[in-house]
Amino acid sequence: MNTPAVFLPFFNKLNGRQKDVLISAVQNRHFARGDVIHHGGNCEGLIVVTSGRIRVYALSDEGKEITLYRLLERDICLFSASCIMPGLRFEVLANAETETDAFIIPASVYKSLMAESVAVANYTNNLLASRFSDVMWLFDQILNKKLDTRLAAFLIEESQLNDSNVLYLTHEDIANHLGSMREVITRMLKYFAAEGLVKLGRGRITLLNVQTLSDMAKDSLK
Amino acid sequence: MNTPAVFLPFFNKLNGRQKDVLISAVQNRHFARGDVIHHGGNCEGLIVVTSGRIRVYALSDEGKEITLYRLLERDICLFSASCIMPGLRFEVLANAETETDAFIIPASVYKSLMAESVAVANYTNNLLASRFSDVMWLFDQILNKKLDTRLAAFLIEESQLNDSNVLYLTHEDIANHLGSMREVITRMLKYFAAEGLVKLGRGRITLLNVQTLSDMAKDSLK
Repeated sequence: MNTPAVFLPFFNKLNGRQKDVLISAVQNRHFARGDVIHHGGNCEGLIVVTSGRIRVYALSDEGKEITLYRLLERDICLFSASCIMPGLRFEVLANAETETDAFIIPASVYKSLMAESVAVANYTNNLLASRFSDVMWLFDQILNKKLDTRLAAFLIEESQLNDSNVLYLTHEDIANHLGSMREVITRMLKYFAAEGLVKLGRGRITLLNVQTLSDMAKDSLK
Repeated sequence: MNTPAVFLPFFNKLNGRQKDVLISAVQNRHFARGDVIHHGGNCEGLIVVTSGRIRVYALSDEGKEITLYRLLERDICLFSASCIMPGLRFEVLANAETETDAFIIPASVYKSLMAESVAVANYTNNLLASRFSDVMWLFDQILNKKLDTRLAAFLIEESQLNDSNVLYLTHEDIANHLGSMREVITRMLKYFAAEGLVKLGRGRITLLNVQTLSDMAKDSLK
C-alpha cells in the first residue's frame, strides 16, 4: 500500500519526482504504549499517525505537565519537525498513549517540499492553524472555566476515547493532563465520589453517572 | 512610496501581475488611540502596521480580557483575515493603543496570492508560528508563574514601550492585560507600593525602583 498517498491530502498535488522523493524517504515506526515519541530539542520529522493515539503536552521548568491535544489516526505531529519553521520558539513533548503505528517524513525532506509546493505550504498552514485553535480552546478553558467542569469534561472524553466507563488513570495522570496538582485532583475526585458521580479504586476510576458528568462537561464547551 | 514593497518581505518574490494586484488592492487606514480595529466575526483582511501600536486580545464569555500580544511597526495582524484559513477556529480582538497607521490587504486578495505563491504561503506559516509561539509563552506564564512576577514584567514592558516611568493605566486596564481581576491587581499593586517599588496615583502608576522590578520580571523570562 502506498501509505503517504492514503494519509497525506496534498500527495496528489505533488509532481512525479516529489512523489518519488517522499515515498522513498518515509520511515515506518511502531511505538509501544508509553514510548516517548518526541521531546523538546530534537527535530527528526513529521509524524503521521496511521493507527493508535499520541498525547502532545507541554512541560514547565518545574516539571508540571499539561496535555495540549491528542493525535489520532490520520493526524500529523508538526512540532516534531519544529526546526523547519524559524518562527516557532516553543517546544512540546509527545508520547504514545496506546500501541501506535506511524510513519515519519524526515524534516529536511518536508522542508524542501514546503519550499517547492504551494499545496504542501498551505497544508502546513492549516495544520498550524488547527493546532493553534486547539491550544486557544485550552487557554480559554484554563482562564475561564472551573476545575470541576474541566475534570468532568476530561473524564467523559477519556471514557469516549477508550470506549469504557472504567478508566485506568492515577490522580497524578489526571493532574498532568489538566495542568493541575495531584492533591487538587484528589480532592475534586473525592467530591465527585461523594456525589455518586464516580467510584474510586487504586489506579482506577469508574464513571457511575455519565449523564450528570456530561451535563457538567457541556458547560466547558460553551 | 511603494508601501507594500517596503513592508512585505515576500513582495519581491511575486511576479509582475501579482505585484500590480497587491498594490492596487491595499487600502491605507488611520486608527485613533482606542479604536477597535478588529472584533471576532469580521474578516476584512490582513492589517500591516506602518506606525503605532495594536493590542491583540482574547475575550471570555464573561467579558474577561487578556492581552495575547502587541503588534508594532512592520508587524502583521493575520487574525483579522482568519477566514482565509479553514483550520482556524478561534477569534481575537484588536484595538489601537496609540495613534496607528496601517494598510489593509483584503482577505480575498491575500487568499489568492497564498494559493498561487509558495513565498506568500510560507511567509504566512512563519507569521502563524510566531504568533503561536507568543501565545505558548503566555500560556506557560499563566500556568507556571506567579502574579507578582507577571505584574512586574508587565510594568517594565509598558515602561519600555512608552519610554517613561509614569504609566497612565487603571487597575482595570492591567487586569485586562493579565487576564486577572481588578481587585487582585489592586492588592498586588498596594503590596508593590508598600515595598517602595511603585507610587500609586489616580489612573497613574510611577515606577520607583526599576532595578528590583526588572529583577523580578527576569524570573518571568526564565
